[in-house]
Amino acid sequence: MTSNLVVNAGRIAADIDALANITEPDRPWTRRAFTPMFLKGRAYVEKAFRDAGLETHIDAAGNLIGRRRGKTGGGTLMLGSHTDTVPNGGRFDGIAGVIAALEVARALSDAGIELEHDLEIVDFLAEEVSIFGVSCIGSRGMTGVRPSEWLERTAEVEGRRIDLAEGIREVGGDPSQIGGRDDIKAFLELHIEQGTVLEREGIDIGIVGAITGISRFEILVEGRADHAGTTPMNARYDALGAASCLVLGIERIAKELALGSSYFAGTVGEFSMEPNAANVIPSHVRMLIDARAVDPALMDEFVAALSALCAQTAAKRNVKIAEPRRVSNAAPTPMSGMVTDVLASSAARSGATSRPMVSGAGHDAAFISKVAPAAMIFIASKDGRSHAAEEWSENDAITLGAAVLFEAILDLDKR
Amino acid sequence: MTSNLVVNAGRIAADIDALANITEPDRPWTRRAFTPMFLKGRAYVEKAFRDAGLETHIDAAGNLIGRRRGKTGGGTLMLGSHTDTVPNGGRFDGIAGVIAALEVARALSDAGIELEHDLEIVDFLAEEVSIFGVSCIGSRGMTGVRPSEWLERTAEVEGRRIDLAEGIREVGGDPSQIGGRDDIKAFLELHIEQGTVLEREGIDIGIVGAITGISRFEILVEGRADHAGTTPMNARYDALGAASCLVLGIERIAKELALGSSYFAGTVGEFSMEPNAANVIPSHVRMLIDARAVDPALMDEFVAALSALCAQTAAKRNVKIAEPRRVSNAAPTPMSGMVTDVLASSAARSGATSRPMVSGAGHDAAFISKVAPAAMIFIASKDGRSHAAEEWSENDAITLGAAVLFEAILDLDKR
Ligand SMILES: NC(=O)NCCC(=O)O
Ligand SMILES: NC(=O)NCCC(=O)O
Repeated sequence: MTSNLVVNAGRIAADIDALANITEPDRPWTRRAFTPMFLKGRAYVEKAFRDAGLETHIDAAGNLIGRRRGKTGGGTLMLGSHTDTVPNGGRFDGIAGVIAALEVARALSDAGIELEHDLEIVDFLAEEVSIFGVSCIGSRGMTGVRPSEWLERTAEVEGRRIDLAEGIREVGGDPSQIGGRDDIKAFLELHIEQGTVLEREGIDIGIVGAITGISRFEILVEGRADHAGTTPMNARYDALGAASCLVLGIERIAKELALGSSYFAGTVGEFSMEPNAANVIPSHVRMLIDARAVDPALMDEFVAALSALCAQTAAKRNVKIAEPRRVSNAAPTPMSGMVTDVLASSAARSGATSRPMVSGAGHDAAFISKVAPAAMIFIASKDGRSHAAEEWSENDAITLGAAVLFEAILDLDKR
Repeated sequence: MTSNLVVNAGRIAADIDALANITEPDRPWTRRAFTPMFLKGRAYVEKAFRDAGLETHIDAAGNLIGRRRGKTGGGTLMLGSHTDTVPNGGRFDGIAGVIAALEVARALSDAGIELEHDLEIVDFLAEEVSIFGVSCIGSRGMTGVRPSEWLERTAEVEGRRIDLAEGIREVGGDPSQIGGRDDIKAFLELHIEQGTVLEREGIDIGIVGAITGISRFEILVEGRADHAGTTPMNARYDALGAASCLVLGIERIAKELALGSSYFAGTVGEFSMEPNAANVIPSHVRMLIDARAVDPALMDEFVAALSALCAQTAAKRNVKIAEPRRVSNAAPTPMSGMVTDVLASSAARSGATSRPMVSGAGHDAAFISKVAPAAMIFIASKDGRSHAAEEWSENDAITLGAAVLFEAILDLDKR
């Protein structure tokens, strides 16, 4: 399938395998940003960039950049993703995108192609929630967002407690110099889908039209801690019973919203209870809801339905439920129509089937899109698994994705 | 109300206040067995026993006993409860029973009454779940049950790690000498109800006909951890959703069983979830169910319904739910009909209203009943609260209860 492509499947497989082997041995595949293992992975990537003829440097925000000068300059075409992982993460999340981008640079050299524009291949710093508790540090930084309140956050690295500013310096950045780029003509990111749409439909490439908005809501349920043996069943204020009604109600609301044509997902990801003692009726439950929509109207609908659900449940179950508190709110991010058009026609030229999609996960591209036309392509994830050792994508799929990026770069370079 | 009784309300109030003041200052009212504060409380009680003319000693199981010799002996009439508390516990749970028993001894002396039988007032060691993780150590010990596997359990006392055997020795017992008593003619325990039946019905005294059986069941739900953003709502294996169905199903089953004439209570007291991360669909839930019945047939009905619920929920929600595992099983304990009859007529003679009840909580009396005719009386708990700082019982109610015990001892002494 990939043998007649300009990009080379074997080189991609070799790089992905090599990075996988750079892992904390007792919990594959782990290479968390700022750890020694991450720096070891970066050293491998930097050498691979140089071997591909790229000039490398670390920018102020700690991103590793490999540059290929163009004939005329006048704007940069950028390709990239990230090489850090979650704990016990996978071999492909982010990594596939960096290696596919690198392969595009190699294939351009192999074919003796000189672009008009500069080309940059980027390994963004700390896309995943990092040991400092924050994510997408490098891509935010590239838009000029210095995570100012964050720079003082501390974490343990090899027995030393350092702050994020020091962490960025240790990977080669300089937080005091972080500033926004204004020269990026277009940004492209290949990523694993982390879902099952492509696999189920047997489609090669997802053309991402938008990255979801993500809001988190905290709900606190307050009942009353009473003796499990002496309190009659009809005289209880059981916070767990009320919280269970909420969980099922939230699922029902989310399923209804997801039935429409626009993307929606709602998940109760955190749930804890007090006093959590065998013979005491639960008095308090805390839940954290992750709600995602591309259409802000759908998120508004969810907020209204959630609020009504809480009020009804509080009344029905005779417990206190505070109005849901929105603890975070990331707006949905439309991708550039110009770039998605280029990607769709590039897919067709590469002989790949494709379909428009939305991304239900956050990505570096969402931040870069603040300063440049940006878009993403997805390739299939086996069984939709990600952030797990089982994460898998076929090397042929990554290679086909790299070919699409190659075509897109040629197209964008002419514009 | 209590002014014309032989027992003295003022002495009872003074003792209960004095013990309440012996508490860990930062978390009233705390006097956990084996801690220095517990020993301080015990010293107060021992002095009060001696001031009442009782001969005191600590038995092999660590119970504090105050004895009043009878004219002929030939069996012991025993009254008692416990003075240890749960962390942040109350001023009355157990304590009311010990002080009411002590007041009976004082009232007998005041009235110049010599009994035929020996009378023993007992403060049982560690009724509550202790720092060693086990409960009713003293009352079990008095029946000859040396908590053999338990004696090696360790806990921290004042910075020292000691085992339970050493803990028992430190309160004055001798675990190697623990043996069952066979001389107890009758045992009576006054306790706070820890529920709201007496309060709601305006009845003075509950005559406890049986102490509930308690079984605990562990349920493990296994779904699949997937990405909260990229996994469609209709392609999830959400362990929390399934567990919520179980919580509501268990509540429904327990409510139905409790509608009958016999006591039943079912509570999900422990609940925890993994991975418990904001953007990950929950993969695992562990629940611990506390189920209580006096009629073993009702417990069997619960077990069958629980098993069916788990199977249905697993099928409906497409997750794995292991067959509920019974992790503990304490049989229900009927009280002595002879002693409950004595208590009911004693209540009537004391001018107290009474009703038969079951105890939904475990008590020392359940263990003593293995070696002697035993029964309990309950007095009202304000708002049903217990194991909490809010725990409250009116001093007049305790005093009336003490008067009932006084009458019952006179009656039992003649038998
Ligand atoms: N791509 C990805 O998994 N991002 C993590 C942030 C999120 O979407 O929850
Ligand atoms: N009386 C009392 O609260 N006992 C504790 C054991 C239980 O019943 O759960």
